[in-house]
Amino acid sequence: MAEFTHFNEEGRAKMVDVSEKPETARTALAHSSITVSDDIYRKITNHELKKGDVLAVAQVAAVMAAKKTWEIIPMCHPIPLTGVNISFSWEQVQQTQYRLHIAASIKTKGNTGVEMEALTAASVCALTVYDMCKAVDKGMIIGPTYLVEKTGGKNGDFRRSEQN
Amino acid sequence: MAEFTHFNEEGRAKMVDVSEKPETARTALAHSSITVSDDIYRKITNHELKKGDVLAVAQVAAVMAAKKTWEIIPMCHPIPLTGVNISFSWEQVQQTQYRLHIAASIKTKGNTGVEMEALTAASVCALTVYDMCKAVDKGMIIGPTYLVEKTGGKNGDFRRSEQN
Amino acid sequence: MAEFTHFNEEGRAKMVDVSEKPETARTALAHSSITVSDDIYRKITNHELKKGDVLAVAQVAAVMAAKKTWEIIPMCHPIPLTGVNISFSWEQVQQTQYRLHIAASIKTKGNTGVEMEALTAASVCALTVYDMCKAVDKGMIIGPTYLVEKTGGKNGDFRRSEQN
Amino acid sequence: MAEFTHFNEEGRAKMVDVSEKPETARTALAHSSITVSDDIYRKITNHELKKGDVLAVAQVAAVMAAKKTWEIIPMCHPIPLTGVNISFSWEQVQQTQYRLHIAASIKTKGNTGVEMEALTAASVCALTVYDMCKAVDKGMIIGPTYLVEKTGGKNGDFRRSEQN
Amino acid sequence: MAEFTHFNEEGRAKMVDVSEKPETARTALAHSSITVSDDIYRKITNHELKKGDVLAVAQVAAVMAAKKTWEIIPMCHPIPLTGVNISFSWEQVQQTQYRLHIAASIKTKGNTGVEMEALTAASVCALTVYDMCKAVDKGMIIGPTYLVEKTGGKNGDFRRSEQN
Amino acid sequence: MAEFTHFNEEGRAKMVDVSEKPETARTALAHSSITVSDDIYRKITNHELKKGDVLAVAQVAAVMAAKKTWEIIPMCHPIPLTGVNISFSWEQVQQTQYRLHIAASIKTKGNTGVEMEALTAASVCALTVYDMCKAVDKGMIIGPTYLVEKTGGKNGDFRRSEQN
Repeated sequence: MAEFTHFNEEGRAKMVDVSEKPETARTALAHSSITVSDDIYRKITNHELKKGDVLAVAQVAAVMAAKKTWEIIPMCHPIPLTGVNISFSWEQVQQTQYRLHIAASIKTKGNTGVEMEALTAASVCALTVYDMCKAVDKGMIIGPTYLVEKTGGKNGDFRRSEQN
Repeated sequence: MAEFTHFNEEGRAKMVDVSEKPETARTALAHSSITVSDDIYRKITNHELKKGDVLAVAQVAAVMAAKKTWEIIPMCHPIPLTGVNISFSWEQVQQTQYRLHIAASIKTKGNTGVEMEALTAASVCALTVYDMCKAVDKGMIIGPTYLVEKTGGKNGDFRRSEQN
Repeated sequence: MAEFTHFNEEGRAKMVDVSEKPETARTALAHSSITVSDDIYRKITNHELKKGDVLAVAQVAAVMAAKKTWEIIPMCHPIPLTGVNISFSWEQVQQTQYRLHIAASIKTKGNTGVEMEALTAASVCALTVYDMCKAVDKGMIIGPTYLVEKTGGKNGDFRRSEQN
Repeated sequence: MAEFTHFNEEGRAKMVDVSEKPETARTALAHSSITVSDDIYRKITNHELKKGDVLAVAQVAAVMAAKKTWEIIPMCHPIPLTGVNISFSWEQVQQTQYRLHIAASIKTKGNTGVEMEALTAASVCALTVYDMCKAVDKGMIIGPTYLVEKTGGKNGDFRRSEQN
Repeated sequence: MAEFTHFNEEGRAKMVDVSEKPETARTALAHSSITVSDDIYRKITNHELKKGDVLAVAQVAAVMAAKKTWEIIPMCHPIPLTGVNISFSWEQVQQTQYRLHIAASIKTKGNTGVEMEALTAASVCALTVYDMCKAVDKGMIIGPTYLVEKTGGKNGDFRRSEQN
Repeated sequence: MAEFTHFNEEGRAKMVDVSEKPETARTALAHSSITVSDDIYRKITNHELKKGDVLAVAQVAAVMAAKKTWEIIPMCHPIPLTGVNISFSWEQVQQTQYRLHIAASIKTKGNTGVEMEALTAASVCALTVYDMCKAVDKGMIIGPTYLVEKTGGKNGDFRRSEQN
């Protein structure tokens, strides 16, 4: 059975030693979402706001957060990311509710995976949408947030069977 | 109808001017959660790991993220927080699944609210639990994450009616 | 004659003591610019790129840099900014050259001024435009960058007589 | 014709994927400047301030900013720099005006260039001089700031023909 | 008997609530030191290195670290410092050993003290001297580091009786 | 005789060029300590505080500081660390005084050493213990802090002969 790897012999947290792991190409894809009222949906997608849209700000925030993941998540290794891409799609979930789907895709060539970078980017993207829209409605719901897939590394690939 | 406040006259994002708002006591409470397998549940709550437990690391990460919210969320104001508290509770959601509930409570005395600080702290707390446990299982699900209540400020208090 | 204030009795740099200065409303406005080829001008202002335009990214970078000024400029005081606004205008300077004018406006209520925050925001805004366009042309020129005006504080207001 | 590379299929900003680019030795050299009154010139170059001079502080700021470029410029890749050097020279531009020339030279071995690191270091160096001298005169002018040359990478070298 | 204040009802760490504490003027003074060989002592104090001395870099590092203390020490409150000053003195401790004494003095007007800022600044100052000199000798010893005095706040002043 | 390497031809600080140094496996081990009263010793080691102990927080702070060393120490190279481990031991030094020994062990594969990362991690660990306990007693003493050993790199290994 798999064991926690973040603890040292004293039972305390450590940053896992990955010195012996080879540098390989790695990718991770995470999803998050934020569910908003139809009023907010219309404001975000309104073509009159064409220059300063909410999603442009959220996307920049997500890219910057991906790069800062090692500063935010204590036991994460600092990894020089080689690519970050954020994409969006909308779904109508009830008559007056829309859900913004957020996909964060990360690439690196390193000796540990980038799952946390993808999850952090997707989370910060949703949080930023919340921030930009909270003057209109504070009832928005973020998530669920989860890993969709990862590739690379000796432990093999991961692909989520069913998605939320 | 409430309008977006984060856009300037050119339709671009700005950091809203709060210079004229008085400094008042403000609080915010946000919830997040992470759903894990019973195997991970047992490892986290195992009393033999009493010195370096996963939740201690997640809690430190959450407190530090609350303080860095203005660095992570682009249009957030920098606010000198006066108190941050993170608390946990467990719920069994299926025979082999447990859900860790995370409550992030923030206080300040300032001219803008701390909703984003509470939501960011709760999110980073869940992300850190994911990071500490992902060697065992990458299928954990984070969230939903939402604001439970806020107090203080001229726009009045907010309290979520039903909770997820 | 005015003296340098950033040096202590040993002749070394210090962060000036502003404890005794009252908290007053303060503003600063700085300008920068970046001169680009007509090809880049057309790409930036092209209406087909309506969702992810260069200036939206540059503006987010500028707002975030304003908040981090105290981290970037060694002897700057950390100041809780209360408002940041970035605006743009274009000028044709030669037949094949256009100049993007950048205005960074900062507000706070504090015991020291926000000139550095305005200058840093304007500079980072121009640097980000360079970064987003450098695959097309590396010959772009940034600046000049200068303070246009400041208000508030015991030393009186400043207003630039002639501008570049 | 060269195209913008920072946009994804949705027309939004992304951090360009450089995973396939080989790690090669790369250098970049950028120039900035700050024009000051003769009063400030004399104070900076005054030999009595031998221990805590303005330029020493500006240089430290520049080196630290070079390392933080990926945090400041949203779509920049994090790059482990292998060398940073800042040098200065003075020019008398009018009877009562002097110009401090700033050269920022960066080295790395990586899969993307360090132009932004050089431009950011030079800009922050000039901003720091402004900060240290602004108690004497707020009319100083920063820049122009531009790339002088870069070497390494598949797109070939760049060398500026005429300089400002 | 005084109790730990950093723990919540679950026995976990929290950032102490200081919302009710009044904003008062506060100061703290901490000392550290680094003991170096006479060779390093001569190199540092050598008047030929008048422009780029080791202590100038260490001092800038100390001022910047004071401002970042809340980022480095998990349960520290973010405090807008109003003044930071670092000073140095040398003592010959053995025939071939010299000790550089470092005093870090911090001021603020806030609702919690600045002891940690003073201790962090003094520590980082010593660490930076080590870094600048380690090519010559890695045997340098840092510390002891301790609080000398603090003033302000409801718990009264602290003044160290005997010093190390 | 070894020379300072952090200065350029103008006698100013620079970040040393390590471009030509090969990437090799490197380790460093540093020690620090904090001397506390028996009251604090008992509170820290008290088994009733089993979930939120002081040392867990200090250890997280140390790991995070190791990763941020290049941000804190001006001329340090950014290095992607591959492993960080912190361990503790207690010693009774007088009838009413106990000393917490802190060992910080760092690994990387890079072109420069990790001595500063180890020293910074050990120092921040001790500072965090101070912060968590200072409500009880402000007289705690940190250090001495020193390098115990390093391996890897062309200049050979270092091992401290006698320890403090």
